[in-house]
Amino acid sequence: MKRSLTPVASLGEFGLIQRLTRGARLVNASSIRGCGDDAAVLDYNNGKRVLVSSDMLIEGVHFDLSYVPLKHLGYKAITVNASDIYAMNGVPRQVTVALAVSNRFTVEALDELYAGILLACERYGIDLVGGDTTSSRVGACICVTVIGEAGEGEVTCRDSARVNDLVCVSGDLGAAYAGLQVLKREKVVVGDDPDARPALEGYEYVIERQLKPEARGDVTRRLAEAGVRPTAMIDVSDGLSSELLHVCVGSGVGCRVFEEKIPVDGQTRRVAGELNLDPVTCAMAGGEDYELLFTAPLEARDALAAMEGVSIIGYVTPPEDGRFLVTRDGALVELEARGWNSFIQRE
Amino acid sequence: MKRSLTPVASLGEFGLIQRLTRGARLVNASSIRGCGDDAAVLDYNNGKRVLVSSDMLIEGVHFDLSYVPLKHLGYKAITVNASDIYAMNGVPRQVTVALAVSNRFTVEALDELYAGILLACERYGIDLVGGDTTSSRVGACICVTVIGEAGEGEVTCRDSARVNDLVCVSGDLGAAYAGLQVLKREKVVVGDDPDARPALEGYEYVIERQLKPEARGDVTRRLAEAGVRPTAMIDVSDGLSSELLHVCVGSGVGCRVFEEKIPVDGQTRRVAGELNLDPVTCAMAGGEDYELLFTAPLEARDALAAMEGVSIIGYVTPPEDGRFLVTRDGALVELEARGWNSFIQRE
Repeated sequence: MKRSLTPVASLGEFGLIQRLTRGARLVNASSIRGCGDDAAVLDYNNGKRVLVSSDMLIEGVHFDLSYVPLKHLGYKAITVNASDIYAMNGVPRQVTVALAVSNRFTVEALDELYAGILLACERYGIDLVGGDTTSSRVGACICVTVIGEAGEGEVTCRDSARVNDLVCVSGDLGAAYAGLQVLKREKVVVGDDPDARPALEGYEYVIERQLKPEARGDVTRRLAEAGVRPTAMIDVSDGLSSELLHVCVGSGVGCRVFEEKIPVDGQTRRVAGELNLDPVTCAMAGGEDYELLFTAPLEARDALAAMEGVSIIGYVTPPEDGRFLVTRDGALVELEARGWNSFIQRE
Repeated sequence: MKRSLTPVASLGEFGLIQRLTRGARLVNASSIRGCGDDAAVLDYNNGKRVLVSSDMLIEGVHFDLSYVPLKHLGYKAITVNASDIYAMNGVPRQVTVALAVSNRFTVEALDELYAGILLACERYGIDLVGGDTTSSRVGACICVTVIGEAGEGEVTCRDSARVNDLVCVSGDLGAAYAGLQVLKREKVVVGDDPDARPALEGYEYVIERQLKPEARGDVTRRLAEAGVRPTAMIDVSDGLSSELLHVCVGSGVGCRVFEEKIPVDGQTRRVAGELNLDPVTCAMAGGEDYELLFTAPLEARDALAAMEGVSIIGYVTPPEDGRFLVTRDGALVELEARGWNSFIQRE
């Protein structure tokens, strides 16, 4: 049975945005009014900080629709923004979504995108409260702005790490990068053959990490429950090395992190081996893991060591001691910002 | 003397954003921390509403860099967002700017764009607190999110007009559309001749209205000072007809507005004549004026009639009386949503 498909132009801008946001329900008390007026109306109580962050995703730069399903793209667009709020030790509450698409997209395709957006909103307890929908000449562009809140004393920036703090990371790293390499390889292998099926069995974890990453609000919640207050925090969007440097440069400190302590999943190691990549390089330089990198007081060592999904990977040093990865054989490798830079064309 | 120009890729993403935002100063008490972390940190007192709105501008759809200078584009990107907050009867306080540009842009070009962004921020007392900078394959895309505040009882939506209210509009209408037609005509006339100078003398007002519109915070301030509380409000981005329908449909009311009362500047009339356009059609269907359309209680008639820069153009009726423009000769023309729709290609 063939579904009939609807050109975007047939609905008009307002009809389109009404259709796309019809599944949006407001769940947060701070969301007074959502989509449909010049601006959304929010209400935050005294003593709370409001956090706001914007991220833009561009077709051909951040995503390739030949291997990223639109529903996953919508989910990921919300996740990466939610991650920014968790990385401030806050809780995301609202998002606005601005979207530009060319005429080659149908309304049904945008329904898929919004299904992913609304699924992620539900997952993270976020209200979709507004945005903009417009056309582009070519390609798609999604800009999400997230608004969150945190108690006045809870906001955790990237520039407040202290000497002797522990350096910790949530989950595991490098999988999203390994997943991207598999997707790129399969795209090449499958090429233009419409009957070819990509060979993705055995790659589920790394592909899921690339296509449908999760923001780690569970980790900030667990830290709060354990009474552990991170001193500095950032999310790992550009690779561990680059994020460590942001924290160290911002805080005016050095660090030592240990190769053997960096959490890398078994499937990531296997895939990296197949692709002739070093798994630790995937973790250090790969990016898009959306795990949390944070520093915490030395006294929290026992609580952190016992915490599920958290690894202690090193410690903060005085700035003059430099910023180093200590390899398994004890060599010191200076950290480099080799993270993702969208302005430099990469192979 | 030739200025040396810097490719965007030479700075890297963080170097670029640091350079572009180096002129950003925080002037609002509610801006605790600005650019440079995962999210900006804002603080709003109890009893205030937080307003948030996003708008996306796409090259080739919303602007044409062959006749829009980048500094004007930056200014306008902030203005159109500030306008959304004023249209809620609020005051804009912070913006985030997400920007995607292709490699054909130099750092100096982006400096110009940000000079316009920061000039508008200064003009409206807005703090630039964050954003994102990335590359695009082709063209430029700017997404601005604005955050504003309003007292709990001051927020004015578009769905709260009441029967017998006055319908009012600020400034004059149709000029931005007339200016766009002049710019398009001169682009055609000038063509590819690098020595040709566009003939823009005598068109200054309409071109300024297109390239550098102003958001009407002065009008909401004047209303508050005069003790006039608008019952519904919207900004005129898509043409008066379309905005009137938003207010009427949202509020479940009808309206009569009078052709002879619609404010159109003399230069707009002259240019419209030259271009064989009806000036009232420019006002009704043109868009991009960023004036405020609002309804107000009948008792405010004297205060509004005496107010600089405000015209009373009609009144609100019961819904069964329909939504009409009354022409100079007394004919009733039903209002149509002929506003700007970016999904439908227009000549």
